[in-house]
Amino acid sequence: MSSWVSGAAGSGFEEDHLPYGVFDAGTGRRVGVRIGHDVLDLAAVAEDSEVSVLLAAGTLDPLLAAGPAAWSAVRSLAHESVTNPARRGAVEPHLHPVDSVRMFLPFTVADYVDFYASEWHATAVGAMFRPDADPLPPNWKHLPIGYHGRAGSVVVSGTPIVRPRGQARLPGAAPTFGPTQRLDLEAELAYVVGTGSPLGTPVPTEAFARHVFGVCLLNDWSARDIQAWEYRPLGPMLGKSFATSVGAWITPLAALAAARVDPPPRTHRLLPYLADGAGLPWGLDLSLAVEVNGTVVSRPPFATMYWTGPQLIAHLTSNGAALRRGDLLASGTVSGPAPDEAGSLLELSANGTRPVPCGGSSRTFLLDGDVVTIAATAPSTGGGRLRLGEVTGTVRPARD
Amino acid sequence: MSSWVSGAAGSGFEEDHLPYGVFDAGTGRRVGVRIGHDVLDLAAVAEDSEVSVLLAAGTLDPLLAAGPAAWSAVRSLAHESVTNPARRGAVEPHLHPVDSVRMFLPFTVADYVDFYASEWHATAVGAMFRPDADPLPPNWKHLPIGYHGRAGSVVVSGTPIVRPRGQARLPGAAPTFGPTQRLDLEAELAYVVGTGSPLGTPVPTEAFARHVFGVCLLNDWSARDIQAWEYRPLGPMLGKSFATSVGAWITPLAALAAARVDPPPRTHRLLPYLADGAGLPWGLDLSLAVEVNGTVVSRPPFATMYWTGPQLIAHLTSNGAALRRGDLLASGTVSGPAPDEAGSLLELSANGTRPVPCGGSSRTFLLDGDVVTIAATAPSTGGGRLRLGEVTGTVRPARD
Repeated sequence: MSSWVSGAAGSGFEEDHLPYGVFDAGTGRRVGVRIGHDVLDLAAVAEDSEVSVLLAAGTLDPLLAAGPAAWSAVRSLAHESVTNPARRGAVEPHLHPVDSVRMFLPFTVADYVDFYASEWHATAVGAMFRPDADPLPPNWKHLPIGYHGRAGSVVVSGTPIVRPRGQARLPGAAPTFGPTQRLDLEAELAYVVGTGSPLGTPVPTEAFARHVFGVCLLNDWSARDIQAWEYRPLGPMLGKSFATSVGAWITPLAALAAARVDPPPRTHRLLPYLADGAGLPWGLDLSLAVEVNGTVVSRPPFATMYWTGPQLIAHLTSNGAALRRGDLLASGTVSGPAPDEAGSLLELSANGTRPVPCGGSSRTFLLDGDVVTIAATAPSTGGGRLRLGEVTGTVRPARD
Repeated sequence: MSSWVSGAAGSGFEEDHLPYGVFDAGTGRRVGVRIGHDVLDLAAVAEDSEVSVLLAAGTLDPLLAAGPAAWSAVRSLAHESVTNPARRGAVEPHLHPVDSVRMFLPFTVADYVDFYASEWHATAVGAMFRPDADPLPPNWKHLPIGYHGRAGSVVVSGTPIVRPRGQARLPGAAPTFGPTQRLDLEAELAYVVGTGSPLGTPVPTEAFARHVFGVCLLNDWSARDIQAWEYRPLGPMLGKSFATSVGAWITPLAALAAARVDPPPRTHRLLPYLADGAGLPWGLDLSLAVEVNGTVVSRPPFATMYWTGPQLIAHLTSNGAALRRGDLLASGTVSGPAPDEAGSLLELSANGTRPVPCGGSSRTFLLDGDVVTIAATAPSTGGGRLRLGEVTGTVRPARD
């Protein structure tokens, strides 16, 4: 049954999508779902239901922790609310135009992990920075490489990004400290963990959907000059930790059922704990678009990602590490094989040597005032396409 | 005035120390201070005072967030409670032998960062793993290298450590998955952040004591075979993320006033944001001891650490990253220049080639059943020596 909410049809936020967010329409933080150009105050609609306690806190945290049966019950309630004409009178007063509300980081980020799951991104970066070696590190096809990022720097879409200062060094010169000259974006998808797991107990690939609540887009802002000077031998740190933006809307896994596809063919035999399952695959046919100042500069295809969500989870917990509610697991930069499918300016500009056309202008790295927006669509269960909540941010000048 | 608590004198936990912890003596989690062989239920003693609300939650979180004036007030209250003979009648019923209580992780860990601040450790590891290059990376003397670890894997002293499984590869062979064969310890000191800072505002070195509440010992358990295979190019991950142990007692910065010493001479000019201050220095003259099964295998001198706490904080926030209550900033392995001053078995055993005598036996890496304890003493303001709360853990066999 289609939604009675006007503007839902064809918006990418139809009744088969219903992503979750936390908004304020003037009365404090509330849990809502997006439908068309509106946000439905789900906490208000659910007030007399048995799931009301999961929605009352002004954050998704209790819902995340409640697990798959509760996720399903709440999704059914949301779906019923926006499709059943008999409910319209009771529900309609709780719709707010999205343009009229303020959105917040919808859950408490526990640990933030950033993977490196695109073969094309890893190959391109390896060729740039380690030209004398095989571009793909020897471990890359055997395990999903990743590192922990700074959970405290995760911000919601729309938060301005102040150009970071930091230490960098030009070849042969002394290190200097100042605003980054090579501010970049990285287009990523992130998995949001709902149900935790106990310390000491690995989570197998087949348990993925019992632990992961949903996904959102993520921009892993990067200062390439800071990163290049600091990252050996312990990995990225200050070049990343100034800000990481996430979309305001968390798309539940259930809404992605029609987007599931096989991951790319495997060129190396995987160890059993990482083996692709026999059931429905968890490759995801999402079409990303990276916009700078309104011009699409890249269209990264998420279906080309080598490592799937279940493999990221299985690897992350293979040593007994616990999952916690709110763990945020990012895919790493999404890049396809074609030149206009790369998810970072580093790749698109060939390390700053080939300016990227961008409206009437061009860019190697980001300038103050630039607006970066990452969007994505995917096949929806209703036969149309859903739109993930975009992640956007404007670059502000470095502080004095 | 000395404490009236019997057993305090000479214990390392005298009235000039008073570290904080969270214990359960049978009535739930309570905030306490250690005095001699007892823990004082500080929440009970403070019940009618104006700081009671900071101590009532069964965690140090509210106290951490309250800032330096509150820290000072609570410390005065604790000091008065254990020294004023007139208070003895009211206070004594709230003492519990430490052997009779259970200790908990005393605060909520926000982000966990592990630095690499010992020149001797970094040099020894560099010489082992990058024998063809300068052992110290070119950036090492210019900035305190660090990486984010897994906050969700931080456990309190005494928690058993299950030998992790993971992926590793012997030279020339295919990767395998199984229990680590090279389980190691790393003796570290960690700074516990109390007062946060806003995103976008660097914290200068001179603000260190306004943000850092205190210190504890930390064991950064490491699986060297997993780490060696995974760590390029993004740094340590599964080789570390299975468990990180912290001491149960947080020593407030004020208790370390007599331990402050100059850091080692600087061989490179530091950029202004990292410059050593003109005031009292923040090198710390702590004497660590690493015990395996009751035998001291190493005595790492913390005073040899190249980078100070204020420099770690200034660097971490130099790009605008926020501090949050509960951020845990570890020093990295503490190693001195002498062979018996190294803070890891990796160094002590020369990468497993030279067994370390240990009681009637010897070790290269840790065996199941091994008990690792890291302890430390420092000059105290009363003229004696204080003991940091030890961090201990027993290695359990890998799970099936």
